[in-house]
Amino acid sequence: MDEQGTCVTTSCMSPIIPMVEVKRFIFDCMKAVNTPEEYAHQMADMLSEADYRGHFSHGMNRLEMYINQIQDGVCDNTAFPEVLKDFGATAWVDGKNALGVVVGNFCNKLAIEKAKQFGIGCVSVKGSNHYGICGKYASDAMKEGFIQFNCTNTSPLSVPTRAKTSFFGTNPFALGAPANNDQFLLDMATTTVAVGKIEVAVRKGAKIPETWALNDDGIPETDAQKAYDAAKLSPLGGPEHMGGYKGSGLLFMVELLSGILSGSKSGPHIERWGKLTEPANLGHCFIVINPECFAPGFQGRLEDILNELRSCPPVDPEKPVMAAGDPERKHMKAVDEAGGVRYVKNQIETCWKLSQRLKVNPLRPLSFDEN
Amino acid sequence: MDEQGTCVTTSCMSPIIPMVEVKRFIFDCMKAVNTPEEYAHQMADMLSEADYRGHFSHGMNRLEMYINQIQDGVCDNTAFPEVLKDFGATAWVDGKNALGVVVGNFCNKLAIEKAKQFGIGCVSVKGSNHYGICGKYASDAMKEGFIQFNCTNTSPLSVPTRAKTSFFGTNPFALGAPANNDQFLLDMATTTVAVGKIEVAVRKGAKIPETWALNDDGIPETDAQKAYDAAKLSPLGGPEHMGGYKGSGLLFMVELLSGILSGSKSGPHIERWGKLTEPANLGHCFIVINPECFAPGFQGRLEDILNELRSCPPVDPEKPVMAAGDPERKHMKAVDEAGGVRYVKNQIETCWKLSQRLKVNPLRPLSFDEN
Repeated sequence: MDEQGTCVTTSCMSPIIPMVEVKRFIFDCMKAVNTPEEYAHQMADMLSEADYRGHFSHGMNRLEMYINQIQDGVCDNTAFPEVLKDFGATAWVDGKNALGVVVGNFCNKLAIEKAKQFGIGCVSVKGSNHYGICGKYASDAMKEGFIQFNCTNTSPLSVPTRAKTSFFGTNPFALGAPANNDQFLLDMATTTVAVGKIEVAVRKGAKIPETWALNDDGIPETDAQKAYDAAKLSPLGGPEHMGGYKGSGLLFMVELLSGILSGSKSGPHIERWGKLTEPANLGHCFIVINPECFAPGFQGRLEDILNELRSCPPVDPEKPVMAAGDPERKHMKAVDEAGGVRYVKNQIETCWKLSQRLKVNPLRPLSFDEN
Repeated sequence: MDEQGTCVTTSCMSPIIPMVEVKRFIFDCMKAVNTPEEYAHQMADMLSEADYRGHFSHGMNRLEMYINQIQDGVCDNTAFPEVLKDFGATAWVDGKNALGVVVGNFCNKLAIEKAKQFGIGCVSVKGSNHYGICGKYASDAMKEGFIQFNCTNTSPLSVPTRAKTSFFGTNPFALGAPANNDQFLLDMATTTVAVGKIEVAVRKGAKIPETWALNDDGIPETDAQKAYDAAKLSPLGGPEHMGGYKGSGLLFMVELLSGILSGSKSGPHIERWGKLTEPANLGHCFIVINPECFAPGFQGRLEDILNELRSCPPVDPEKPVMAAGDPERKHMKAVDEAGGVRYVKNQIETCWKLSQRLKVNPLRPLSFDEN
């Protein structure tokens, strides 16, 4: 398994599934639980985009959880967000417990409109649900020529510097900017790693670095299984003397912009996503900037520095220097060339069961048509 | 020596210098090189604030360098920034090679005005010089009730993930927000540590963690002296497998918002500060947000979560959990109680020589009055 949880040997992999089929399946499943068509399309676009980029944890892998939440009544898949305050270049939004992706797209579009009108826009939202990968919102704004920042709080899984107990989530953010024929797209959790990476180390029986996770007593844990069981992630940097207090600060920064600004749930008060008993009430923040309001030629300068960065002499000639977003673009290129994505067999089984449960056509690999 | 380079034994420390005397001395030195009074006051406020907060590397320690640059004609201490573009909630500014602090204060005030008018403001500036500590600008905006973000590029000193050579500076940023009787103030370089910390390890003869710095070949270096000689800092996180690629992304993010957006010099094209042969032409970015445009009661919620964070059970009861900005507030309290700051004797000697060279009254310790 590689870091995204995909299989690197063909034995545990599915045949190739075309991206249109990935979208079709997600759309049909969402429709089957009475999601309005427009929202079902948005879900299909978001989850397929995650898989397309190689962030498999956030794509098809999450479909069943979204479906369960809708069927359990903790997320309202027919709701639509509402603007509570609109002032100048800002807006405060209530997500109304709608699908996180619907809330996210609404807020992002609003922030883009504000940026068109005022050069910058900032939208803060409460009452939302998991909104997919941050990078998708940045990517959408970048297509219109904007710089985009967005972030979200998530349920407690990380331990602040010096503490023993989880307090913040993995609190991810993205910052993206378009360049001529190029782009910069940073999409990162503010913990050192996501839980998925520890899971991969468990399967390999490998030790993990001391900057990844802690044991129950809040001490760095290098045994992957023990770290996985404790589920206490380190802030980016790891222990205090290795700069982890900066990662702690980043975790708080995201919480401040997501939860505290919007008035959603925050920090330790957020329920575990897989076990919600009431609406998640997550908060997000969307900031969009029009680079044309500043020095002319932004996209050319960004293209130049990206190329300069990639031209830095590498320590290992086999591992060239990359910019944020390059690994994802490499993955997307590979998917395009292959004609689709491959999933681990577990995922295919989950999809099969879901198709039976929701009475939708099963996920259909490319090879069914080809052979 | 502690991490800020101050002495922890009294033998190598100066007597206490009251903060008003610190400001007086900086003001007089700046005046002596024909700095307009208003700008000399701004420099005195910035540099004394750095020492007050315990960031001694950025305070009195830098006065001589500012003076030298003025006398060498590479920084124009009589110049004033000029707005090149003004659109909605944004402005693009040319710093005109004025004192970085004068440029920074001008841009921060402009961003605050924009936030008052539009809920958020964003000012990007090129043609600037070193502008002091990021935290001061955040602090000034917080006093008026705003959330503030600012960042700057600096001369190359850090090595991107996988590379052998320096490309970015330490690229610091601050994000601050006011709370009821409290505050959050994250002010951090996006490298794991600043050079000063390695210098301290050299003096102690201590090993440094592998996440701090690299040798000439771009390999993590744990020998403090070798790391100090190579002067190649690691992005926050350290090596790639420990999350350093995220720190690399943060370094780039700051460069993008500072240099690329403003059209200033950027990345490897920035000259070393101590050895400028032409104007530094640094770039900064200032974003100010009015939290009142979003969910009412922001400052109360922030106060609550700060207190919750500090109440987390600590691993070591002697080391309570802190929020970003707490160490600085502790330092300021100690300075207030002592009636001023103590400097290392080296610093006092430098100030003495400066007073002779510029023909200003020497720095006068509290004890001269007291005894």
